[in-house]
Amino acid sequence: MSRVFNFSAGPAALPESVLRRAAEEMLDWHGTGVSVMEMSHRSAAFQSIYQQAEADFRELLGVPANYRILFMQGGAIAENAIVPMNLLGDKRGADYVVTGSWSTKSQQEARKFAEVNIAATAEASGFTTIPAMERWRLSDDPAYLFICSNETIGGVEFAFDPDLGDIGRPDLPLVADMSSNILSRPMDVSRYGLIFGGAQKNIGPAGLTFVIVREDLLGKAHKDCPSAFDYALVAEAESMYNTPPTYAIYIAGLVFQWLRAQGGVEAMGQRNAAKSALLYNYVDTSDFYENRIDRACRSRMNVPFLLKDDRLNAAFLEESAAAGLVQLKGHKSVGGMRASIYNAMPIEGVEALIGFMQDFAKRKG
Amino acid sequence: MSRVFNFSAGPAALPESVLRRAAEEMLDWHGTGVSVMEMSHRSAAFQSIYQQAEADFRELLGVPANYRILFMQGGAIAENAIVPMNLLGDKRGADYVVTGSWSTKSQQEARKFAEVNIAATAEASGFTTIPAMERWRLSDDPAYLFICSNETIGGVEFAFDPDLGDIGRPDLPLVADMSSNILSRPMDVSRYGLIFGGAQKNIGPAGLTFVIVREDLLGKAHKDCPSAFDYALVAEAESMYNTPPTYAIYIAGLVFQWLRAQGGVEAMGQRNAAKSALLYNYVDTSDFYENRIDRACRSRMNVPFLLKDDRLNAAFLEESAAAGLVQLKGHKSVGGMRASIYNAMPIEGVEALIGFMQDFAKRKG
Repeated sequence: MSRVFNFSAGPAALPESVLRRAAEEMLDWHGTGVSVMEMSHRSAAFQSIYQQAEADFRELLGVPANYRILFMQGGAIAENAIVPMNLLGDKRGADYVVTGSWSTKSQQEARKFAEVNIAATAEASGFTTIPAMERWRLSDDPAYLFICSNETIGGVEFAFDPDLGDIGRPDLPLVADMSSNILSRPMDVSRYGLIFGGAQKNIGPAGLTFVIVREDLLGKAHKDCPSAFDYALVAEAESMYNTPPTYAIYIAGLVFQWLRAQGGVEAMGQRNAAKSALLYNYVDTSDFYENRIDRACRSRMNVPFLLKDDRLNAAFLEESAAAGLVQLKGHKSVGGMRASIYNAMPIEGVEALIGFMQDFAKRKG
Repeated sequence: MSRVFNFSAGPAALPESVLRRAAEEMLDWHGTGVSVMEMSHRSAAFQSIYQQAEADFRELLGVPANYRILFMQGGAIAENAIVPMNLLGDKRGADYVVTGSWSTKSQQEARKFAEVNIAATAEASGFTTIPAMERWRLSDDPAYLFICSNETIGGVEFAFDPDLGDIGRPDLPLVADMSSNILSRPMDVSRYGLIFGGAQKNIGPAGLTFVIVREDLLGKAHKDCPSAFDYALVAEAESMYNTPPTYAIYIAGLVFQWLRAQGGVEAMGQRNAAKSALLYNYVDTSDFYENRIDRACRSRMNVPFLLKDDRLNAAFLEESAAAGLVQLKGHKSVGGMRASIYNAMPIEGVEALIGFMQDFAKRKG
């Protein structure tokens, strides 16, 4: 089969040019005679790959000099524990804004380590919106405030970088799980104390975690925090405290180079806005499909939609896959369909999907 | 440059046929139209890759049915904390046999969680031997006894699977870090309660951790153990509690298939014995090089050797690299040279190294 349009929520589609280059370089990276997979992480060759990836990530996202970029392992689910183990310090609790499945999981895991205050939750809406900042109810002295910037399953996204100064807490570290929308638009890193995520949506292969942390937040790890997950130790060792996932970092680096060639996050932001608008507009004007998410909070990355007649779901999935549009099944907790359209999904993929949806609606409607 | 002989201690050389297949399948795995890197970990395609890898690993190593195989993240350094977090249960301490740098690190990390008793240490010998089992001094009621089956840096290896019944503790779980000699010879898994390691020496890319654990040891995790590292949760979720390092598992699976085609661990054991004997024999008969490790404990995986005149080290490294023999520098704590000759190193690589060593000795001796 030729390449398909892959709408997987993650691990997700990668730029084809990145995969081609990885295949070409598989047996011999730049004349070294070895694959990147076979390189000592301390070799000059891998160090150059690592340094370039770190520098490109920093430049793409505009990460200020007083933030460290760490490459770790365990994904966002491990970070749900690693964050409180590192940031609580001598405080007892942390505040969480709950906007869907992922932030629900995050606050549950944090309860192992911290008194968790739910500052706001959209549960009553069925997680179809994001509670307005002015209604967030913060505790007196939390170690940090946690958000999930994009809920992959429900399809809601913070369209902005919250400024905690606006709610009278300019010094409270804002922590964000950005697994599924990192690098998808320009952002103001300085609004956050810590940003983390799994790489497998917008950056690269599963098994790589990125952490962007303000330096003043380092060095507070709980004494029982495993050394490999102590941000200060990882930062001091330049992400080589343990052997890092070297090949995943290499692929991430190729994705960063691809992003730069595409025009960076500015261009990506425009492209992602255009792609998602196209799909939401079609769904909204159709009487065959629907999306129930608050329009101000709709994710540009994950577009869930329902067939109004859910008896047609199986046929939709079977026929779309046969048409080369794969992984469209919605998460079981939501049902229906979900099109994940991260950076690597070209607008042609969205157009092809809409074309199929129109045709399907015409035939079955 | 053409492919070189790569003596890296890890990440280490992989079979060339595995890399060729990975390159060929990079853009389209088995007609799915997507790369393995782009597959949802829950897709039927990836599930088939995962199941095959697990089954092949189990068959190669002869893992009994009452053991679970887990694929995790964080490498052996993370496991140094994850093991006590999972196995201590209601016991207070654990016993460690210290045979070099890695077991030293393991017992240090365990002190965060447990009262550590050093049952034996070879430190007085400069870590050139393994203390005889009859001299191990166990504590009264440890949760487990820990060994590192092969010390990558010092170059000592357990040539046998310890039977704790021989020292009157048949029910004490034996835990082994087998990062650097897993699958290098036939072994008796039933002697162990838990075996773990990073994949990046004998199995595949860095970023993948294997854990083989007897089922009765599951379910004792400390309440502060991050969920992603709770063996019982990982086992229940078939290593999908968090998104696993999918591409690394795929490569590991290709390595397992390669191992089966080579004749399995029986053939590997013979080949590794022959490779290492060739190199040790040459070093021992040379008056230009030396190895100071107790002959009964010499590693078949990592062969450290010294030039008797260490002023020639730089020239040795430069000229060997120019001859296509790379990553021979010894660990800084030991000095000299180290040839890591894992499963993927063909005997031709060892012969080429010896040829170079002979020539170098003739020219400089």
